[in-house]
Amino acid sequence: EGDKAAGRKLIYTCNGCHGVPGYANAYPNYPVPRIAGQNEQYIVNALHEYKAGERKHPTMMAQAQSLSDQDIQDVAAYLSSLAK
Amino acid sequence: EGDKAAGRKLIYTCNGCHGVPGYANAYPNYPVPRIAGQNEQYIVNALHEYKAGERKHPTMMAQAQSLSDQDIQDVAAYLSSLAK
Repeated sequence: EGDKAAGRKLIYTCNGCHGVPGYANAYPNYPVPRIAGQNEQYIVNALHEYKAGERKHPTMMAQAQSLSDQDIQDVAAYLSSLAK
Repeated sequence: EGDKAAGRKLIYTCNGCHGVPGYANAYPNYPVPRIAGQNEQYIVNALHEYKAGERKHPTMMAQAQSLSDQDIQDVAAYLSSLAK
């Protein structure tokens, strides 16, 4: 079970590219996906795939490798709770 | 340049799994990504990657192969215009 409050503390880095609402007003122009309001289990799966190298984006692989399994649950719980 | 009106006609199939707002009320419980309001260029890139087999999801590869380059622009223009 993900902890939204814990997740909120972990997503500061995400905002650098993804422009998470509440952290930044401007949505970035380069083609990173919108993650606020994304499906919780989809986020969990994507981060595990990056962590395992099954998804190949270098920045995201590095980010995911810095997250524990609980961190991934928490990040997904927080991001999926944001405005849809 | 994508044509939103043309894109709207193409996304009927997407809704079966992705639950696009306006086509369905319930967001699906299985872990497909939310695509309404997604970054336009990210959608374009993802569909081209599926079409080329660089992304491997079988259903999405088949769907993307049914779309022309213009169709992909149109779908991305429409989906990215939806409520964020």
